[in-house]
Amino acid sequence: MRREAGVLTNKVPKEISEMANKVRSSDRRTIAQAITLIESTRPDHRALAEQLLSDLLDDTGKTIRLGVSGPPGVGKSTFIETLGLYVIKKRHKLAVLTVDPSSTLSGGSVLGDKTRMERLTRESDVFIRPSPSGSTLGGVARRTREAMLVCEAAGHDIVIVETVGVGQSETAVRDMVDMFILLTQPAGGDELQGIKRGVMELADLLIVNKADGELLNAAQRTQTEYRNALQLLRSASPDWTTPVLTCSALYEIGIDAVWDTINDYHMMMSKNEALQERRREQAIAWMWAEVRDALNEQFRASPVVADKIEDLETRVANGSLAPVAGAQALLAAFSGDTQL
Amino acid sequence: MRREAGVLTNKVPKEISEMANKVRSSDRRTIAQAITLIESTRPDHRALAEQLLSDLLDDTGKTIRLGVSGPPGVGKSTFIETLGLYVIKKRHKLAVLTVDPSSTLSGGSVLGDKTRMERLTRESDVFIRPSPSGSTLGGVARRTREAMLVCEAAGHDIVIVETVGVGQSETAVRDMVDMFILLTQPAGGDELQGIKRGVMELADLLIVNKADGELLNAAQRTQTEYRNALQLLRSASPDWTTPVLTCSALYEIGIDAVWDTINDYHMMMSKNEALQERRREQAIAWMWAEVRDALNEQFRASPVVADKIEDLETRVANGSLAPVAGAQALLAAFSGDTQL
Repeated sequence: MRREAGVLTNKVPKEISEMANKVRSSDRRTIAQAITLIESTRPDHRALAEQLLSDLLDDTGKTIRLGVSGPPGVGKSTFIETLGLYVIKKRHKLAVLTVDPSSTLSGGSVLGDKTRMERLTRESDVFIRPSPSGSTLGGVARRTREAMLVCEAAGHDIVIVETVGVGQSETAVRDMVDMFILLTQPAGGDELQGIKRGVMELADLLIVNKADGELLNAAQRTQTEYRNALQLLRSASPDWTTPVLTCSALYEIGIDAVWDTINDYHMMMSKNEALQERRREQAIAWMWAEVRDALNEQFRASPVVADKIEDLETRVANGSLAPVAGAQALLAAFSGDTQL
Repeated sequence: MRREAGVLTNKVPKEISEMANKVRSSDRRTIAQAITLIESTRPDHRALAEQLLSDLLDDTGKTIRLGVSGPPGVGKSTFIETLGLYVIKKRHKLAVLTVDPSSTLSGGSVLGDKTRMERLTRESDVFIRPSPSGSTLGGVARRTREAMLVCEAAGHDIVIVETVGVGQSETAVRDMVDMFILLTQPAGGDELQGIKRGVMELADLLIVNKADGELLNAAQRTQTEYRNALQLLRSASPDWTTPVLTCSALYEIGIDAVWDTINDYHMMMSKNEALQERRREQAIAWMWAEVRDALNEQFRASPVVADKIEDLETRVANGSLAPVAGAQALLAAFSGDTQL
């Protein structure tokens, strides 16, 4: 069982630099432990985690960062397994991370779900890490970004961040990867409506999975329909038109074309500096997102603010208080609080 | 010239309640003055503006709030003029507000542009207010929301908020209206790509304008193509499938169908409480947006933070500093600053 959870004892290694060295030498237990440290909400752990990340920073970034998303049942796990087995045959090292806000519902059960990506978990060049249970989406995404850096420092040159398509998570994932891959499946007529509006705009590559057997024709029709739909939309990048491919992850058909497209994209984006620019923008946006999240957390953690929220929200919702007046009341409470 | 700018003298009426009464009696000069007060950034004006809005709050909401957006050149002004003349014939009172971040480029020139909605500006039951020049998008949207309430209290039972399609402004407008209308124009094949990805998801109604003369066939083809594209996307609301209509605002063709659809939508949304729910959510989201904006403003206005931004952003962008560490440095500077 290679899906590592990494139990964090109270005893964090005295020297974070020792942990960093063991991450760099790709010690699996240490990688898992480092990510658990990163996911910890204890302030002392947080401080150590930031120290660790700063230490590892120089060894990150030499990676292809892929996001994979799609509605439930589209075959994300099978796709990632098949693509994963394909790339490790090409001597890549792969890390798979999950941003899955819905996994909080099933608690820790994802960890025990051994049938998911079973073949991939047996490979030594693969590191798989599910989301911590009980986290909020924002929290998961923040820590997944950091976990990605740990995996990169450990020599994983392909990182796949997986998320189920439930709305905000796709944007969060798109903002941390080089290429966002959207999976969909064959369908006819009114059955379509699979992709949430606004998510298609995020895709750098759209793949119709399950293009096999009886569904082959429907898959090709769906491919054409998405190609037409994408023509109606402005391109996300001036240098790249989102391709629509078909594949069968289950029967391992079309995976080579997927991999070629990933490489084409990566080469094109690297050549004209667009990749570096995207990463620079992501890093700055990430810094500001951290700032915003911290400010909001401080705000909501203020007891005098927390006391007022319910009453003010009720009055604003029923129209008896202007939203701006509600905001002023909250801000006044907060600044009174921080001045104490 | 009915497009009111409302010069705000230093002497604000002693009694805000007097101003509120004159707004309620639909005194045009007072409406304009009230909006200018709302747009003012002076803290004493802001306090008065909030007082005014609280006073007017009970007289707001009995309105159909429409957002109209679309790329430059699609004919937004003509459409609003034609629709506006149509609804005032039906004895409605109309207010038109603009959220136009690009108008800052042209400075105050929009004000002088008399050819824009010339016929509409001559009508006494119409109040037109362009964006204040020199404002940021966030600021314009914040104040436009408040200006909308003033117009409602003054008895304008239809409010149209217009925005040019430049990205974020559509989301800002969608978050303050009952129905978001997206305009597009006829085009063939590769010429399409008019609507920015992700904006289509916001539309409660999509209209292909310029469906006249030589463009009539192309308009109908475009209508079909957008209908097909929308089928591929999940609906924004379970009770409403975004219709795609054609019209010619210039030749006043198809405006009755547009108006019927607006009424159908409003009736359906009112009947099942969806409208009230959307407005409740908008009000609470608005309160929190005000809080976030204020916190961010306080943060960025802190001199010690401002001093560090450029250096930290550079180091985060070139990868020599972890984004989280950059955020920590900014937050530490800020909390040191506020504790002084």
